Amino acid sequence: MKTQVAIIGGGPSGLLLSQLLHTHGIDSIVLERKTKDYVLSRIRAGVLERGLVSLMKEAGVSERMDAEGYPHHGTMISYGDEMFRLEFSEHTGHAVMVYGQTEVTRDLYDAREKAGGKIEFNVEDVVICDAKSETPYITYTIDDEPRRIDCDFIAGCDGFHGVSRKTIPEDVRTEFEKVYPFGWLGILSETPPVNDELIYATSDRGFALCSMRNENLSRYYIQCDMSDSVDDWTDDAFWAELKRRIPADQAANLVTGPSIEKSIAPLRSFVCEPMQWGKLFLCGDAAHIVPPTGAKGLNTAASDVNYLFRALCDFYENGDSAGIEAYSEKALSRVWKAERFSWWFSSLMHRFPDQGGFEQKMQLAELAFLRSNKSAQQAMAENYVGLPY
Amino acid sequence: MKTQVAIIGGGPSGLLLSQLLHTHGIDSIVLERKTKDYVLSRIRAGVLERGLVSLMKEAGVSERMDAEGYPHHGTMISYGDEMFRLEFSEHTGHAVMVYGQTEVTRDLYDAREKAGGKIEFNVEDVVICDAKSETPYITYTIDDEPRRIDCDFIAGCDGFHGVSRKTIPEDVRTEFEKVYPFGWLGILSETPPVNDELIYATSDRGFALCSMRNENLSRYYIQCDMSDSVDDWTDDAFWAELKRRIPADQAANLVTGPSIEKSIAPLRSFVCEPMQWGKLFLCGDAAHIVPPTGAKGLNTAASDVNYLFRALCDFYENGDSAGIEAYSEKALSRVWKAERFSWWFSSLMHRFPDQGGFEQKMQLAELAFLRSNKSAQQAMAENYVGLPY
Repeated sequence: MKTQVAIIGGGPSGLLLSQLLHTHGIDSIVLERKTKDYVLSRIRAGVLERGLVSLMKEAGVSERMDAEGYPHHGTMISYGDEMFRLEFSEHTGHAVMVYGQTEVTRDLYDAREKAGGKIEFNVEDVVICDAKSETPYITYTIDDEPRRIDCDFIAGCDGFHGVSRKTIPEDVRTEFEKVYPFGWLGILSETPPVNDELIYATSDRGFALCSMRNENLSRYYIQCDMSDSVDDWTDDAFWAELKRRIPADQAANLVTGPSIEKSIAPLRSFVCEPMQWGKLFLCGDAAHIVPPTGAKGLNTAASDVNYLFRALCDFYENGDSAGIEAYSEKALSRVWKAERFSWWFSSLMHRFPDQGGFEQKMQLAELAFLRSNKSAQQAMAENYVGLPY
Repeated sequence: MKTQVAIIGGGPSGLLLSQLLHTHGIDSIVLERKTKDYVLSRIRAGVLERGLVSLMKEAGVSERMDAEGYPHHGTMISYGDEMFRLEFSEHTGHAVMVYGQTEVTRDLYDAREKAGGKIEFNVEDVVICDAKSETPYITYTIDDEPRRIDCDFIAGCDGFHGVSRKTIPEDVRTEFEKVYPFGWLGILSETPPVNDELIYATSDRGFALCSMRNENLSRYYIQCDMSDSVDDWTDDAFWAELKRRIPADQAANLVTGPSIEKSIAPLRSFVCEPMQWGKLFLCGDAAHIVPPTGAKGLNTAASDVNYLFRALCDFYENGDSAGIEAYSEKALSRVWKAERFSWWFSSLMHRFPDQGGFEQKMQLAELAFLRSNKSAQQAMAENYVGLPY
C-alpha cells in the first residue's frame, strides 16, 4: 500500500492527525496494535485545553463535544479545610472542556469511518524502515500475513511503549525521566460529582482529585503508595480516605456509591529529544509523559499533532518544508513548558516520602501565595487552559 | 535601668526598631554584644525592598540613601548565553534601592546617636527573665559588671545565634530548616559593575551574581562547594570562573581587579514558630534565615520590625494590644512567603549535586516560561520589590 502519511497508533493523537490531514486532502493510513473496542475501553483524562477544543472543531468532530461537554471556567484548589477558586476565563479569556478522552477517541473513529479513512487493526511486528531516506516505509503483519506501506512521512503516535521512539538510534536521542514515589488510585462511580468544578486537594494525608465525566458519572483519585494494589482498596476504604483529604464541607456533601472501575496509575515525567528523525515524527506519549496532575497528557499530544499537521500542510500545499524541519524544536519548546507545569503542580500537591517539615511549609506558602496573588493565579490559569500553540 | 522596649541586638533590625519607636516617643535601649565598629565591618546584602525604603523615610534616616542609593527598576536574569530583563516598575509601580546594609546601619547609628538613644556595647551574659510575666527584665554584664534592664517588652533582634530564640522553651517552638549543599563565594572589588543592573546568572557550572554598591565598587558571587575555603580561590581563579557563568558578551565587558574582601557564606532556609513568647518578640535572623538569592534577609527583618513597631505604637498610643497579640501570626505569614520566594529562586538558579537531567531541564523550562510569560514576570517582580506589609 501507499499513502502520504503513515500513522502508527490509533489512539486520539493518531486519529486526530489523520482526520485533520483529511480535511486538507492529505492521505493517511492509521496502524493500530489492538482493536477499536480495546482502544475505547481505556479510561483516561477528561479535561481538554482550549487548543484541543479548537482542533476538534477544525477537524469537524466537535458536534457531540459541544453538546455534551462541560465548559469549566475555573477549578477549586484545597489544602486541608482551606479552599479557593482559580478563575480561568477572567484571567485568560478561555475555559477548558470536561469531555472524556474516550469520547474524543470515539468521535474521531466515527469521523474517520464516515470519511472512509483507512485504519488497520491488530497490527503486529511493526518495523519503521529507511526513515532517514526519501522513501521510508513500514512493514508489519496482520494474522501473520506480512504487509508494507510506502509513504512520505511517518507519524509515531504509538505511545510510550511503541516502536516509534525506539526506532531513533540510542546515540541520537536523549531521554529525561523522573519517576514519582507514589501512584494515583482512581475510581469511576455513577454518582453526581461532589462539586460543579474539579477540586485539586492536598492534605497531610496526601493528594486527592475530585473530577467528573457528567452529572451522574464521577471520577475520583487519591495519591497512594507505589506498592499498593487495587485489591488493597475496598470502595469503602477509598471513600473514607478521599473524605479525609478534601475540605470537611465537601466531604459532608460527597455522594458515594459502588465503583464501576478502579485502577492505579504510576506518575512519571519523561521527555525524549529530538522528536524527529528523518521522516519519522513522534507525537504524544511516544515522546513524552507527564504526571496526570493538571491533565496535560492528551493536551500536549494534541499540541504536537497541531504542529505536525500545520507543517505537513505547508509541505504539501506550499512546498515549504520549514515547518517539517522545525517540528522537533517547536514541539519540544511547548512540551517542556507543559512538563514544567505538570511537575510543578504535582510537586505542589503531593506528599513525598522524603519530605521534611520545611518542604511541607513551602507547599503551604506557595498555596497561600497562589491564593492571594493575582499574577500567580493568572500564570497558573494560562498554563491550565493551555499555553498558545 | 528601666525602659519601655529593651532591644537585644544592635544590627540594622534593632536600630531601625529603636529609631522608629523614638519617632513616636517610645523609649528603648539597645544591647549589642560587639562594638559599633565591628557591626559596621560586616558586609551584607545591598538591595532594599520598597517597604524598607519607606521605613527608612518614616524613621527619618533616608537622606543619604536618597542621595547616594541607586533605584533599580529591573534586574537581568541569564542562563548560559541567554539573558532577559525582569521589569519591576512597569509590573508593580515600585523599584528597589541598591544601598548597602552597612550604610543602612551607619545611618541608623548616626540617627540614634544624634537623638541621644541609649545603646550598650560589649554586652555579655544576656539573660531574658520573666518574659511570660507582666514585668520582664534582662540581666547582662559589661566588663564583668552585672546590669539589669526592666521593661515592658523585649525585642529579640540578636540574629540566628543570639539568646532570644533560645529563650523560648523547646517544647513551645518548632524549627524548620533546609541546608543547601553549596555556598556563595563573594568578593568586593573597586571596579565598575559589569552592568547597570544586577545579573542573576545560572549555567552548567552553577550560579553567579553580579551585584554592586556604587559606580566603582562591585560585589560578585559564585556558587562554590561547601568544602571550599577562601584560600582555595585566588582572585584570578574567581574572575575566570565568574566569566564562565555569565553570558559571553557580559564576560567580555567585565572589569577585574584585586578583591578587597573575599568570603564564603553557607545557604540556609530556617524559620522558628512562633515568633513571640510572652513579652518577647523575635525579629529578623533571630527567627528566620533565607538563602541570599533575591536579597530577602534584611528586607524580611524590616518587615518584622514594621509589624512590631506598629503593634507597639497601637499599644502605647491607643491601649490596643491586638497588634501585639497578632504579631507572630502576621509576621510569619509574610516570612513564609519570603522564604518561599528565596527557596524558589535559589532552587531555580543553582546546580545541585544530586540534580538529574530532568531537573536541569525543569530549571531551563521555568526560565524560558519566565522569559516569555508576563504573569510569571509580574509575580516574580512583586516578590522581588517586596510583597505589601
